[in-house]
Amino acid sequence: MRTIDWADGAIELIDQTLLPGELVIRRVTTLGELIDDIQRLAVRGAPALGVAGALGVALLAHEGDPPEAVRRHAARLRAARPTAVNLAWGVDRALARLGDGPAAVLAEALAIRDQDISACVAMGARGADLIRGMLDAHDDDDGLGYVDGFGHADDPGEAGASGRGRPARVMTVCNTGGLAAVERGTALGVVQTLHERGQLELAYALETRPLLQGARLTAWELERMGAPYRLLVDSAGAFLLSQGIADVVLIGADRIAANGDTANKVGSYALALAARAAHVPFLVVAPESTIDPSTRSGKDIEIEDRGADEVVRFAGVRVAPEGAQAVNPAFDVTPAKLITAIVTERRVIRCHRGEWPI
Amino acid sequence: MRTIDWADGAIELIDQTLLPGELVIRRVTTLGELIDDIQRLAVRGAPALGVAGALGVALLAHEGDPPEAVRRHAARLRAARPTAVNLAWGVDRALARLGDGPAAVLAEALAIRDQDISACVAMGARGADLIRGMLDAHDDDDGLGYVDGFGHADDPGEAGASGRGRPARVMTVCNTGGLAAVERGTALGVVQTLHERGQLELAYALETRPLLQGARLTAWELERMGAPYRLLVDSAGAFLLSQGIADVVLIGADRIAANGDTANKVGSYALALAARAAHVPFLVVAPESTIDPSTRSGKDIEIEDRGADEVVRFAGVRVAPEGAQAVNPAFDVTPAKLITAIVTERRVIRCHRGEWPI
Repeated sequence: MRTIDWADGAIELIDQTLLPGELVIRRVTTLGELIDDIQRLAVRGAPALGVAGALGVALLAHEGDPPEAVRRHAARLRAARPTAVNLAWGVDRALARLGDGPAAVLAEALAIRDQDISACVAMGARGADLIRGMLDAHDDDDGLGYVDGFGHADDPGEAGASGRGRPARVMTVCNTGGLAAVERGTALGVVQTLHERGQLELAYALETRPLLQGARLTAWELERMGAPYRLLVDSAGAFLLSQGIADVVLIGADRIAANGDTANKVGSYALALAARAAHVPFLVVAPESTIDPSTRSGKDIEIEDRGADEVVRFAGVRVAPEGAQAVNPAFDVTPAKLITAIVTERRVIRCHRGEWPI
Repeated sequence: MRTIDWADGAIELIDQTLLPGELVIRRVTTLGELIDDIQRLAVRGAPALGVAGALGVALLAHEGDPPEAVRRHAARLRAARPTAVNLAWGVDRALARLGDGPAAVLAEALAIRDQDISACVAMGARGADLIRGMLDAHDDDDGLGYVDGFGHADDPGEAGASGRGRPARVMTVCNTGGLAAVERGTALGVVQTLHERGQLELAYALETRPLLQGARLTAWELERMGAPYRLLVDSAGAFLLSQGIADVVLIGADRIAANGDTANKVGSYALALAARAAHVPFLVVAPESTIDPSTRSGKDIEIEDRGADEVVRFAGVRVAPEGAQAVNPAFDVTPAKLITAIVTERRVIRCHRGEWPI
């Protein structure tokens, strides 16, 4: 099952607003529908938005409008959500093939889809290897701390083969699983790989207010993969890290600046602070396409405010008094100095050693 | 209006589970009802639980049971919630008068009620003076940081009178208002005092999952006092502090150890980490009765886990897949080293200068 795909001249996507209650695949045939689905988070997650952007351009190209009209409409799609860089990246990649005709545009979009699938497989393996190496290095160090033990991850095969290590206890926020990509996820793809290798003891999933992607989507994915997990409210994450319940924190990313500062679901920054205080490694798992060369640092990232309604209501139930106003930043920025490493499909960027993505 | 009181031989309390939708005053005539109301959080907040504990013993004493029976029943009441020390403290204070008859027990309970009312007035004034002094010192320091400016608060009258300062922007979590005490609150009592003095620019209230005391109760109180505020999801607090939106963080306390380590609503610890990172003062506001001499440090504080049900449902709607398990610590512990100062009705304990409560 794919989160988003192309079928018979249209986009098909899982409507994630209906999960975990119902698994419904929506067929999207117009740009207006696609933009609406992106803005109401029927499809979300940086890698999936990259594919959605490219497929959206393919949809436009297939309607036979002149290239100028396609570009004009695509600009609206590109701006549908401001923080995740992948959406704009996917739109731009597909637009670059516009001169070669609709079939070429679609081929580019499908290539992005296929690259996402293989990138997630690679990230899962690389991240799981890194964690295996960290845990074994930690055991060897006799408690000297995981961060210092990172060097061992350069030879994960040996570390994994030695069988020294106990399974990992991981913590994550929001949804970075298959639902955030095409088939497998980024940070949750690493958790899935650990689980498939028999190296996952327990996953702690933050519920992720206001839209509860952790409770609704990540828990649903973990159930489906048969992985052991516990759900928690977002504010319990920092405290539980201080109590030593997790070996590593894994997050995805919506945009990574050239210096490694990372925009991700709001709550990531608090986890990073708590991970640092507890000497727990903090890993960002994202494809190379999430690294934005034109964003120098976190200060340059626009943070989307999604308005009061998501905060004062849930499922039609009003939870705050009438008249309540809210601030609702959908993302936050974790400075690179709090990130142990960024794992992509190609490399491990060791921010804690001063390495920069670009 | 009082959150909890004694009237015509019974306890009367606001049923806080029904707010902000309905304001209902419940009449409680049996110990079983009172324990149930405490456990389902119809009455909550450390100071209010102190009064509830004492009034519960008065209720038992008025039933005419022999002292041994009263003590046995009171032990159940004392253990109804494990983290807030005030409940046990209120029970014990009332039990100490058992030998003098029911009227003496009731008089002691009413004394605790009246002391809470005046303590909250005193904390409000002391906390507001401290913040005024901090802000003015900060302005004088020309941006050297609030924490270093604390010395000025020793002469808050002068600082306040000079009129140098702009109004304060504060952040708080959970509910520490009149609903957590008898008439006025602790941390929110300070906010109320700032507002009454015309020195409040804006209050940021964390919604406080899982039971939304911030969205349901604190927002309701702020609306009633006409104070300007914004609601936010818990995980946005740390990020917004990093963006410089608040001058001070104010929390209440459920138990303060002898060394200043403070148990409070889960989420407090993450705010303290973020406040430290942003050089924003972090204040605990609580009555002396919340300081527990028998608790040496945070390690000795039992943290109540309230079970999965509060997490997997939201406003009565199931949000996680069937079968989802959860961890649900109701409190966390903020180490004294992250606390700028503890404000009580009698003093300011400057933890950042190494002062201990006991």
